[in-house]
Amino acid sequence: MDKIYIIKIGGNIVDDEQRLTAFLKEFAGIKGHKILVHGGGKVATSLAAQLGIPQTMIEGRRITDAATLPVVTMVYAGLINKTIVARLQALQCNALGLSGVDGNMVLSHKREGITDYGFVGDVDSVNVLLLKTLLQDHALVVAPITHNREGQLLNTNADTIAQEIASALRHQYKVHLIYSFEKEGVLLNVAEEHSVVPLLTREHYRLLKEHKNIHSGMIPKLDNAFAALDAGVAKIIIGKAEKLNDLLSGASGTTITNE
Amino acid sequence: MDKIYIIKIGGNIVDDEQRLTAFLKEFAGIKGHKILVHGGGKVATSLAAQLGIPQTMIEGRRITDAATLPVVTMVYAGLINKTIVARLQALQCNALGLSGVDGNMVLSHKREGITDYGFVGDVDSVNVLLLKTLLQDHALVVAPITHNREGQLLNTNADTIAQEIASALRHQYKVHLIYSFEKEGVLLNVAEEHSVVPLLTREHYRLLKEHKNIHSGMIPKLDNAFAALDAGVAKIIIGKAEKLNDLLSGASGTTITNE
Repeated sequence: MDKIYIIKIGGNIVDDEQRLTAFLKEFAGIKGHKILVHGGGKVATSLAAQLGIPQTMIEGRRITDAATLPVVTMVYAGLINKTIVARLQALQCNALGLSGVDGNMVLSHKREGITDYGFVGDVDSVNVLLLKTLLQDHALVVAPITHNREGQLLNTNADTIAQEIASALRHQYKVHLIYSFEKEGVLLNVAEEHSVVPLLTREHYRLLKEHKNIHSGMIPKLDNAFAALDAGVAKIIIGKAEKLNDLLSGASGTTITNE
Repeated sequence: MDKIYIIKIGGNIVDDEQRLTAFLKEFAGIKGHKILVHGGGKVATSLAAQLGIPQTMIEGRRITDAATLPVVTMVYAGLINKTIVARLQALQCNALGLSGVDGNMVLSHKREGITDYGFVGDVDSVNVLLLKTLLQDHALVVAPITHNREGQLLNTNADTIAQEIASALRHQYKVHLIYSFEKEGVLLNVAEEHSVVPLLTREHYRLLKEHKNIHSGMIPKLDNAFAALDAGVAKIIIGKAEKLNDLLSGASGTTITNE
């Protein structure tokens, strides 16, 4: 089975010219199949501010109201996506940029619940056939905008999209899922960058949680990572995306695997 | 040889909710291969105004300076492209949105000349293989942003992109190129909408120009159309895109053909 790398980068890479350059250079160099899922970052926030659209955050999540939806669509699917694709092409990497809308790549439904997140989509399905066809000749660059098949665009968490694509491709490829992160990896002591746990098993994770060694913000990320393993993803790596080669070789970051 | 429809729409459709709805419904209903090339319209202009980016127009053409380039990239490749794709999907048309950047679909170089148009690209090549692959299962929606393969995004005239794609596909398909227009077609008398010329031959065009029956603004459009015929495009139709079915059947608009 062919290997595929699915790499999610967020604002800490997208917003930082130097890190983005370092990351794209290493991404372009990866042999074989690869998908880059990018989030937004400060550009959407600052564009909304310039346009006088107030941004509401609940527990660190942006509320995507009717005025904010076009802003994130423009920034994610337009500016960031096409800028990254053009830069990868300049590095001889044949990149092709898509959102979840295109060819129904990622279908979703509007999130319902007590908190109204606005036009936020929870993923229903991933178009594996389309991904497989496009991956034959391209590195894919995915913007986290999806739709509900009834004409409604929906803003969708980029971590979730990376994970859903990873799970959907598990029968077609040996999937390595890499989450970019502002820290070196999972740290035993949040204040010490060198306290990174190189390999995290399920049992080890249970013990670390029990002894409260793991920062509370990391727990949903790691729960998601283990859920992805359960869903058949071969390996998950968490660390600094600007050290991509080291992450893939195991020289940096935290690797989570059942193997 | 399979037929393909390449349809260019501009601001008079994109900016008008009612016309856009009528057009998309008819576009979704076309059987077989089809490509929609869209321009920008007022959204980019009004976004630039809101952001305090002065817009310079020379002979009706926008100067794409360094501050304007991200604006057109966001609006064309992000907002307009993904909105159209989502709406076509809701109409059961399997649309996929791309810019010229993606998979090097349209490569260009920065225009040089006496007038500095800024980051404007003139087309060098079209990736026929990519288009052919994607057209197997999709209607393509193309945003007029290209790149120079060195990482530079470039704003490119949507009419030109439609024509370059049409010419590039002439050996693969029987190409019908449709230019959307605010008038019913080529008019003998600009003040009378019913004076449309249903069929325009090269000889007829020569005579109309000689007798100054053709409005000066139409001449570059028609010269381009005849150039496309010379390049092997089967048929060119000019008219109102919201009457797409009538244009395709010959019941509306002006058809330009060698046949």
